[in-house]
Amino acid sequence: MPEEPRTPSDPSGPSGPPASRRDPFAWLDEARASRERAGLVRTLRHRSADSGLLDLAGNDYLGLTRHPEVTAAAADAARLWGAGSTGSRLVTGSTALHAELEDELALFCGFEAALVVSSGYAANLAALTALTGRGSLVVSDAGNHASLIDGCRLSRAETAVVPHAAPEAVAKALDGHDGRALAVTDSVFSVDGDAAPLRALYEVCRGQGAALLVDDAHGLGVVGGAGRGAVHDAGLSGTASTVATVTLSKALGSQGGAILGPARVIAHLVDTARTVIFDTGLAPSAAGAALAALRLLRREPDRAARVRRAAALLHDGLTAAGLYAARPDAAVVSVRAPSPDAAVRWAADCRAAGLQVGCFRPPSVPDGISRLRLTARADLGDAQLAAATSTIVRTAPAGAIV
Amino acid sequence: MPEEPRTPSDPSGPSGPPASRRDPFAWLDEARASRERAGLVRTLRHRSADSGLLDLAGNDYLGLTRHPEVTAAAADAARLWGAGSTGSRLVTGSTALHAELEDELALFCGFEAALVVSSGYAANLAALTALTGRGSLVVSDAGNHASLIDGCRLSRAETAVVPHAAPEAVAKALDGHDGRALAVTDSVFSVDGDAAPLRALYEVCRGQGAALLVDDAHGLGVVGGAGRGAVHDAGLSGTASTVATVTLSKALGSQGGAILGPARVIAHLVDTARTVIFDTGLAPSAAGAALAALRLLRREPDRAARVRRAAALLHDGLTAAGLYAARPDAAVVSVRAPSPDAAVRWAADCRAAGLQVGCFRPPSVPDGISRLRLTARADLGDAQLAAATSTIVRTAPAGAIV
Repeated sequence: MPEEPRTPSDPSGPSGPPASRRDPFAWLDEARASRERAGLVRTLRHRSADSGLLDLAGNDYLGLTRHPEVTAAAADAARLWGAGSTGSRLVTGSTALHAELEDELALFCGFEAALVVSSGYAANLAALTALTGRGSLVVSDAGNHASLIDGCRLSRAETAVVPHAAPEAVAKALDGHDGRALAVTDSVFSVDGDAAPLRALYEVCRGQGAALLVDDAHGLGVVGGAGRGAVHDAGLSGTASTVATVTLSKALGSQGGAILGPARVIAHLVDTARTVIFDTGLAPSAAGAALAALRLLRREPDRAARVRRAAALLHDGLTAAGLYAARPDAAVVSVRAPSPDAAVRWAADCRAAGLQVGCFRPPSVPDGISRLRLTARADLGDAQLAAATSTIVRTAPAGAIV
Repeated sequence: MPEEPRTPSDPSGPSGPPASRRDPFAWLDEARASRERAGLVRTLRHRSADSGLLDLAGNDYLGLTRHPEVTAAAADAARLWGAGSTGSRLVTGSTALHAELEDELALFCGFEAALVVSSGYAANLAALTALTGRGSLVVSDAGNHASLIDGCRLSRAETAVVPHAAPEAVAKALDGHDGRALAVTDSVFSVDGDAAPLRALYEVCRGQGAALLVDDAHGLGVVGGAGRGAVHDAGLSGTASTVATVTLSKALGSQGGAILGPARVIAHLVDTARTVIFDTGLAPSAAGAALAALRLLRREPDRAARVRRAAALLHDGLTAAGLYAARPDAAVVSVRAPSPDAAVRWAADCRAAGLQVGCFRPPSVPDGISRLRLTARADLGDAQLAAATSTIVRTAPAGAIV
């Protein structure tokens, strides 16, 4: 089959096939072959309802996604409100259930107001596009999640990417900028599970008249005494210049995302954020499940400490055996692998031994280093953690021991 | 409170407040005041589980979102699989239920493969970013949905916006481009409910070696004999160069979106699309509900014809009374209003009379003309349609009658 030239600078010339015979997707085969050579092909593995594996890969940090109160709330909401929200939040997609969730989420996290959207991805796109724009400066941590990076790209603001977790670099980037400015960071970074220096970032922003946007996806339910999140833990909730985003799909075991902030910020998002205006509202079942999980967490706040303890145990066991893993500030523990291929084989060996772990390869790792990504859960016992550690150490490839 | 300058070209100068005393969100108040003056402030109205209103605003075209089989499927899926999918589709977020939905959706719409994501918005971002890129040309209809526009912006491709529903303009934009090219269009445009000339667009693309991406969000379940969508109806499903996106939140009454296309396109999305890799998988309850709705539609294919008939009746009644509405090609009927303010008052008057209608104002309307947006449903009876028509005509503002 004739292959289309891949770029304008690589035309097939007058002797190339006529346009009408070109296959517009022929380039996909070459891209696929290139990923195969680099060990970067991915396959969806469709899990069964009960795989029998010990799960250290999912983001159900508090062990709530299958909690009977949470699944019952999802089921009840579907029956009462319908399976879908039927439209944009601005048309028919807002229910009293969404409002209830927003009120309780804002209160729990210490913010004036909250706005629930269909995903954490959509929450980050909403906050970044609506709160910045042409002429604005966004200062973005080099380790930020893809959804924050995409939000920066969509915002049309000038974006300065600064070294990871370096408030002094943020200060330097903000220095001398006279217009609107916003610094953006994950609170807990998804790849290595390390925490951002939120308090220092806030002080830098305040000193320069900039706003601070924090993606607390991995902090909510995990960080702080009662799991109120890293922003609350840093004492920044409810400040006039701080906005947080969270996801309902990790510690809260459901689906969706939310933006938390001053009431005027939330009102501005309702009026202008494209992923609020032009997306269908979150399904009632997801809103109901997240609300039930939030209420469970308020009733059982020790779940937050339990997941942090489980992560620390995992880390200590793995590093004692010579593996390289960053000290976890929340639920995520990542172990470095010598190559993408080695990471895939390592994960497969764990799986064969009954343990499911995450495997992060480019482009999911900002530094290009592949990793096994482990997630602790509040409902894991010490014996399970010891068995998981032993499996990971036993199956480790040669180059993983440092 | 001191106000921050709004752009770099408008500095407050040496006499301005020190940066540490600036309020980084002060500009929001002025933006709000400006929207108030333009009649563009929006308020979330949280509906109750049974408002008693006749709903001509939601996108539940087939009347399935509260169908007992659909809500029972949502509830069952939450109980069996958990309230959330717990991770990215590439980690723990793929279940056998997602695979089942993808297989049946692809088969129903006539495509080789399908990939389900958390929203139609995410589906469009995935398709546009993964199938184009720097050096590519994207030719985009001026009336395309915001999620397609945002996909173009994120793609980093060169984007040529062409006049609405004009294949000859697409041909002209593609002419002479040697690299990768893709034309993108809604199948049924969300604002006026008019159909794109899909067959002509396909021929133009084929003649120039370009791919065609069609957002069939408003076509699935509504267009074509059995509601297989506008792409199937145009005979384009399963062609090597056509990709479609759909939403599970309109005719299928649930939440989520999907990309449909050749298997190699779907495999490429799994490997590279950021809203696939970095977003949490769709909640099992939403996947289960969409699957149940799809099976209902296959069993009761006349639902598609019923919603089209209802839309035609609405249109005929309204235009007979002198209102301006484009002839509907699917379920959406939009009536022009003389101003944003008039549209808001008109919608409020309908509401007071027991009828809920959508109200589209800038930035939700590409031509800046505010509208009442009505959506037909398969389960509306003739008496309900006549009553709705009568209410809309009776409450119409002076400038709306043409």
